[in-house]
Amino acid sequence: MGTKSAALPGQVLADLRELDAQTGGEGGARRVAWTSNWERARALFAERAIGLGLTPERDRAGNIWVELRGESDSLLVLGSHLDSVPSGGWLDGALGVWAGLGVLEGFLRDRRRPQRSVAVVDWADEEGARFGRSLYGSSAFVGALEVDELAGLLDRDGQSAAEVLGAAGISFDSFEGADPRLERIAAYLELHIEQGPILAEAREPVASVTGTVGISRDCISFEGQSAHAGPTPMEGRADAFLAAAEVAVALEELARRSGGRATNGRLDLEPGIPTATAGRADLFTDLRHEDAEALEQMHVEAGRIAEAKASSRGIEVTKRKIWSIEPRAFDPRLVEAAREACVSSGGSDFTMPSGALHDAGELAPLVPTAMIFCASQRGLSHCPEEDSTEEDLECAIRAFDRLARTVAERSDLS
Amino acid sequence: MGTKSAALPGQVLADLRELDAQTGGEGGARRVAWTSNWERARALFAERAIGLGLTPERDRAGNIWVELRGESDSLLVLGSHLDSVPSGGWLDGALGVWAGLGVLEGFLRDRRRPQRSVAVVDWADEEGARFGRSLYGSSAFVGALEVDELAGLLDRDGQSAAEVLGAAGISFDSFEGADPRLERIAAYLELHIEQGPILAEAREPVASVTGTVGISRDCISFEGQSAHAGPTPMEGRADAFLAAAEVAVALEELARRSGGRATNGRLDLEPGIPTATAGRADLFTDLRHEDAEALEQMHVEAGRIAEAKASSRGIEVTKRKIWSIEPRAFDPRLVEAAREACVSSGGSDFTMPSGALHDAGELAPLVPTAMIFCASQRGLSHCPEEDSTEEDLECAIRAFDRLARTVAERSDLS
Repeated sequence: MGTKSAALPGQVLADLRELDAQTGGEGGARRVAWTSNWERARALFAERAIGLGLTPERDRAGNIWVELRGESDSLLVLGSHLDSVPSGGWLDGALGVWAGLGVLEGFLRDRRRPQRSVAVVDWADEEGARFGRSLYGSSAFVGALEVDELAGLLDRDGQSAAEVLGAAGISFDSFEGADPRLERIAAYLELHIEQGPILAEAREPVASVTGTVGISRDCISFEGQSAHAGPTPMEGRADAFLAAAEVAVALEELARRSGGRATNGRLDLEPGIPTATAGRADLFTDLRHEDAEALEQMHVEAGRIAEAKASSRGIEVTKRKIWSIEPRAFDPRLVEAAREACVSSGGSDFTMPSGALHDAGELAPLVPTAMIFCASQRGLSHCPEEDSTEEDLECAIRAFDRLARTVAERSDLS
Repeated sequence: MGTKSAALPGQVLADLRELDAQTGGEGGARRVAWTSNWERARALFAERAIGLGLTPERDRAGNIWVELRGESDSLLVLGSHLDSVPSGGWLDGALGVWAGLGVLEGFLRDRRRPQRSVAVVDWADEEGARFGRSLYGSSAFVGALEVDELAGLLDRDGQSAAEVLGAAGISFDSFEGADPRLERIAAYLELHIEQGPILAEAREPVASVTGTVGISRDCISFEGQSAHAGPTPMEGRADAFLAAAEVAVALEELARRSGGRATNGRLDLEPGIPTATAGRADLFTDLRHEDAEALEQMHVEAGRIAEAKASSRGIEVTKRKIWSIEPRAFDPRLVEAAREACVSSGGSDFTMPSGALHDAGELAPLVPTAMIFCASQRGLSHCPEEDSTEEDLECAIRAFDRLARTVAERSDLS
């Protein structure tokens, strides 16, 4: 493909370890979006880019771009995210950003421009750990962010997204339609760890990803009556926590029955003290399915379960949509190119859908998109134990580099 | 009984309304211990006492005492607490403190010393809303506080009780044995709202209380594995929240079966975000029963339930005792005197045990103790809706005043 140098997996891994030393460590990654540790991680990324002679740019939504000019204006984007969940893993998101920079570094060592321009983007707030709204940066970029919905979301301390993002210099008034960069994008590629056990159990280092699952995320609020723990007989209670607890257990069963996934990772109780029943419980439900219709059925059934469990306790229930995304298939030709890159880099022709959200899912409806997954040890992610073997990481970085170089040079692929 | 004036229910109610205006209002009482609003409430109490020509004193644990000297050194104590739960009720605790001051005011209007000295005490941090340890002030007073246990308790923001109480000028080093005042105490009386529906349903304004139930309060910690909501199949999960949810629902059933009460008002999840299963869940359990043996059986059974639910999910469980108290009977002669005071003040001879904790429970094993309850509308407490009718409050204040005057003058009663 006209170039000889390639990304050096060793350099990418060294960069990842330095990032972990500065913004992670034993308790896991501490790069929750809109915190100083996240800013520190992004500064490291910007400093590395500047060291390569490139110029980081921040777009209106706070995504950071580093572009290597090619022969044409047509843009290949390599993206992922530096933010993490609290006590998250060292590779989740960070792998793709640093591997992208590794690709640019390979081109620079060649001292020859690629056919297309190639940019690495660090999407802002992919995780949605603070406000429950994932894929903030990429959805803002493509013009799919519902700004009013986001602005009103509150974190656990009652601060609104409008306040917090405003303090980070972001003005929602500027979010009219898609970012102008979108018109130049010919393809979007993302390298990410799998975050699940499928590759590890199949003993595969890497996979080409066929698309992302659909997700429906709500906050179900149960409104009962807070009452003193002692004098209130069991019979007269309207305990909002117990209604939420029954719903959470029932959703697990629903997910099993439906072949999907249901997670309740957050529950807020009011007043939330040991000596009073909860008068209010906010349960955050995250439902996922590969199939759009099956997801919709799960969603309707979850609502019915909440109604039934609440009404049997004399409790009011309301459901507020936090966010949803339909299942999205990636570009068949790029999925095939990714599969070939995996095979040529020491993997097999394994393909799979992604159960996790990725920024790639926001880009996929608008530009040809593909992803490569790297195996996660024990399938663990969003926790300090998250890890991948050095061998698998090296294979994944090589495969991603190969795929990026192919797309950067071959105009027939997108 | 040699005196003519008595507490003026109207004045006590006016004081209570002023307290509510300054430290409560529509969202309920905001007098959580160790906050500035609580300090404001205590300052109001101290100012009123000073206005009567009395001198407030703070003991080593932070309880505030106001004493009216009598003919003898023998001390009758009238106590309750000004602290509240978050968004609590206007009467819980405050009623007893202001009614006590009303009794002193009645004596002062007589311009004649009572036989015994009479003190009003505002016990510090009765609710335990911040650290989960109730009856702090009264247990410290009688020497029953396990200081090391308390010191290590953390609030939701990770601040320890040692830090917070230290900042309030309290030194745990001074907590050797009981407070010297204890030796002088001949009797302890407390007026409190019922906080349950029993009197309201029986259409009784007041009751003489026979004793307090036993309570066993633990924090049950479930340690599973946090995992990403999307890629982790339902089968491989070790979701700590679901184990805690099943236990909470099972404890409700256990309480019904045992004739006791079980409350789970607080649950802390880690990481506590919508996109990951909880790797850790801390469930706070509060078990109550009138009968010591039945309470012990509930406690053992609750432990078994937690073990079983956790182990079926491959989750580790540990139980940490927060606090416990055995059932405590009040002094039969004082209970009878309280009953007579209720009858003479417009009530009937209704008696009942208390399902709620009271500082009286800490005093009862050491000095003759009794309580009077005032009916709570709809049985609600620990919430902004807590209320009692003006008629019931007036009856309760009159009955308490009558009881206090009887005990202050009659040496055969304690």
